[in-house]
Amino acid sequence: MSKPFELPVRVYYEDTDAQGVVYYANYFRFMERARTEWLGSLGVDMVRLQDEERRIFVVAEVQTKFLAPARLRDDLIVTASLAGLTRVTFDIEQKIYRDSTDGDLLISGIVKAAYLDADTMRPKRVPTSIFGENQP
Amino acid sequence: MSKPFELPVRVYYEDTDAQGVVYYANYFRFMERARTEWLGSLGVDMVRLQDEERRIFVVAEVQTKFLAPARLRDDLIVTASLAGLTRVTFDIEQKIYRDSTDGDLLISGIVKAAYLDADTMRPKRVPTSIFGENQP
Amino acid sequence: MSKPFELPVRVYYEDTDAQGVVYYANYFRFMERARTEWLGSLGVDMVRLQDEERRIFVVAEVQTKFLAPARLRDDLIVTASLAGLTRVTFDIEQKIYRDSTDGDLLISGIVKAAYLDADTMRPKRVPTSIFGENQP
Amino acid sequence: MSKPFELPVRVYYEDTDAQGVVYYANYFRFMERARTEWLGSLGVDMVRLQDEERRIFVVAEVQTKFLAPARLRDDLIVTASLAGLTRVTFDIEQKIYRDSTDGDLLISGIVKAAYLDADTMRPKRVPTSIFGENQP
Repeated sequence: MSKPFELPVRVYYEDTDAQGVVYYANYFRFMERARTEWLGSLGVDMVRLQDEERRIFVVAEVQTKFLAPARLRDDLIVTASLAGLTRVTFDIEQKIYRDSTDGDLLISGIVKAAYLDADTMRPKRVPTSIFGENQP
Repeated sequence: MSKPFELPVRVYYEDTDAQGVVYYANYFRFMERARTEWLGSLGVDMVRLQDEERRIFVVAEVQTKFLAPARLRDDLIVTASLAGLTRVTFDIEQKIYRDSTDGDLLISGIVKAAYLDADTMRPKRVPTSIFGENQP
Repeated sequence: MSKPFELPVRVYYEDTDAQGVVYYANYFRFMERARTEWLGSLGVDMVRLQDEERRIFVVAEVQTKFLAPARLRDDLIVTASLAGLTRVTFDIEQKIYRDSTDGDLLISGIVKAAYLDADTMRPKRVPTSIFGENQP
Repeated sequence: MSKPFELPVRVYYEDTDAQGVVYYANYFRFMERARTEWLGSLGVDMVRLQDEERRIFVVAEVQTKFLAPARLRDDLIVTASLAGLTRVTFDIEQKIYRDSTDGDLLISGIVKAAYLDADTMRPKRVPTSIFGENQP
């Protein structure tokens, strides 16, 4: 069982709304940044994939709990780890903490990603080798 | 059982990403526009609520399936309807269709909203009278 | 001299920030919506242009004054009108008012748009016929 | 004459649009991140300012040239430096480069910021001491 990937994210005005906290849809931007960097750390270059192999990752499903709000200038840690794998999809567990993974847990979710042919938008077999020993 | 509230939304460049489709987090922006207009149609003025009564609605949980992508210049219909009610939360079913509710179903989700004191962020009893005969 | 094109835009939470007003970059989203609808009203289908003729409009320059803030639930009018034309660019005057063009002027700007080959990103001659009798 | 402040920014899907490049309004998000970090490096804590002193910085005017597009996964450098100062406003020169300040210049602009009372939205004297020896 490997340690989740961690990405630090700072909250700027662009992320907040008139309630004074991060706008709920923007946590999904933070989560995608962490997924991108996590896949990059596993050797997946999504730009090359899309341009050369015509393969893309898309989000098929999300389940997310908003436990506590992040605020302007908060320093967040956004995590990503493999939580499940089928032939054409994989589940990513993602959490957002304030300050560190020992800090307040603000967001907890599961993202189901699908691997598609970029031209036909049809499912393709996930290249599971990228997950190596991290497979659940 | 009442008909869901419907809000038309057009897709602009701002909503799309380099995959040529609507960026997944942006569907949550569309869904919030529909929730706001739906609550407004039920007599809820969220600006007055926040400013005068110090009460806010926040999203506590989302479950969403991304079934098919929306594209630049698509005309979408975003729906909202009450799907459940507890003392301090309520569930809203939301769907996004292309062109009309007879068109392709692109997004299907449930949003759990909580009603909070804007200063203490503590749960408050949902003013269920707003839902009138629409209660499930 | 023709009347500027007008697009109504409502302000939602997604548009605001923790200062309680519309986040400055988001006015540019509103302005692009108005430009798109204005060009559409002149017969320009930007999706078809990009997909079939491989031509795109891009923003080359903006000059914008932020005179007063828009707030949550404001109903804005965003205008667009042709202010100048060269062989490969055109200038669009854009204003944002609260409630109506008789209301408070919040934003005033000029956007220089260029017409490009979508593949080479090289300038192409603006199809000035689209502006018809609206040419300045 | 001091060296401009530099902030690295990576381009994610959220920043791009269906033209395959960064959406023009999103460069202003990058520029605000750099301004915030620059002011922070000068000792200005904008959260404390807003909460305790009821003072905010707002953008009064922008002039920006979009010279070349940034793309998905580009690593950008966003700069900020003081370019002018009046009693109640200051001008910030901002540039965005690909890879490094020796790389391609993508965006070049001037942002006029005003210093306001957060409650009355009236101009206040800029605390010029923050700029120290960096004053132009």
